[in-house]
Amino acid sequence: MPDKTSVIRPTDEQARLLARQLLQSARYVSLAVLDPETGWPSVSRVLVALDPSGVPFILVSTLAAHTRSLLADPRCSFMAGEPGKGDPLAHARITVMALAEKVAQDAPERPQLRDIFLGHHPKSALYIDFPDFSFMRIIPQRASLNGGFGRAFNLDAADLCAPVA
Amino acid sequence: MPDKTSVIRPTDEQARLLARQLLQSARYVSLAVLDPETGWPSVSRVLVALDPSGVPFILVSTLAAHTRSLLADPRCSFMAGEPGKGDPLAHARITVMALAEKVAQDAPERPQLRDIFLGHHPKSALYIDFPDFSFMRIIPQRASLNGGFGRAFNLDAADLCAPVA
Repeated sequence: MPDKTSVIRPTDEQARLLARQLLQSARYVSLAVLDPETGWPSVSRVLVALDPSGVPFILVSTLAAHTRSLLADPRCSFMAGEPGKGDPLAHARITVMALAEKVAQDAPERPQLRDIFLGHHPKSALYIDFPDFSFMRIIPQRASLNGGFGRAFNLDAADLCAPVA
Repeated sequence: MPDKTSVIRPTDEQARLLARQLLQSARYVSLAVLDPETGWPSVSRVLVALDPSGVPFILVSTLAAHTRSLLADPRCSFMAGEPGKGDPLAHARITVMALAEKVAQDAPERPQLRDIFLGHHPKSALYIDFPDFSFMRIIPQRASLNGGFGRAFNLDAADLCAPVA
């Protein structure tokens, strides 16, 4: 079997820029969590936005399985980057390994996160203030960027999160 | 906290039909696997097709992390159903818990799977015969269907896989 590292390219500024663009332009991501009952990985779709320091956060309901999973085990990953026309694998996407951290309802930054989230997802006004909903940061730890067939890069957290203008 | 089951609707024929449509029309899925080194759930994008009995299968390279993960632990899940315009959460998607099973290079059904896959993904002709690539079935065990906000259903394997015309 060929060496895994042979397909990973050295991380350069272009790769970092692409990674940040994928995070900044994502309206939603595929979120993988660990099901606490079965141990299986489970993937679902969540809306996402970035806090002022560039850390992604999501709005979750305690009724949703992914919320219970993240509260039981904060290890997760998310994929950003949607295909356009043609070969889906020719389009860039990034898988970010992350740790989830709930934002308390009385956290001082919550009103700002609420404003940011509503700005990106106006339809969430219908449920954002429901008592079973809260924000969770999904804090990047490291990532794999796939810029298209054969263009793979590894990135660390510092490569990913930049303050949002 | 409200009872989880209160948001799950009874599975009906319409839900089964929608689930099968999502599987049959998917060109690619988000695949969640368990990273054998860290235990974290990892999500990536893979092309998919259905075998003649309606079981999804994928084409994977031993160079890819998800392949090593599936060979170490076959438990996985995949999400099918892509958003169109408007609120991403208003569009139907399905999360299928599955077990991965490699198709041997000399399996009698491999030529047929190869033809099916090439029919759906003609660009894969560039690498489908590379020695590091092989097919894996991702065999549904159970699923969660989300037909849009507040329309959730649980399905079992028999609800999902129907022979392909």
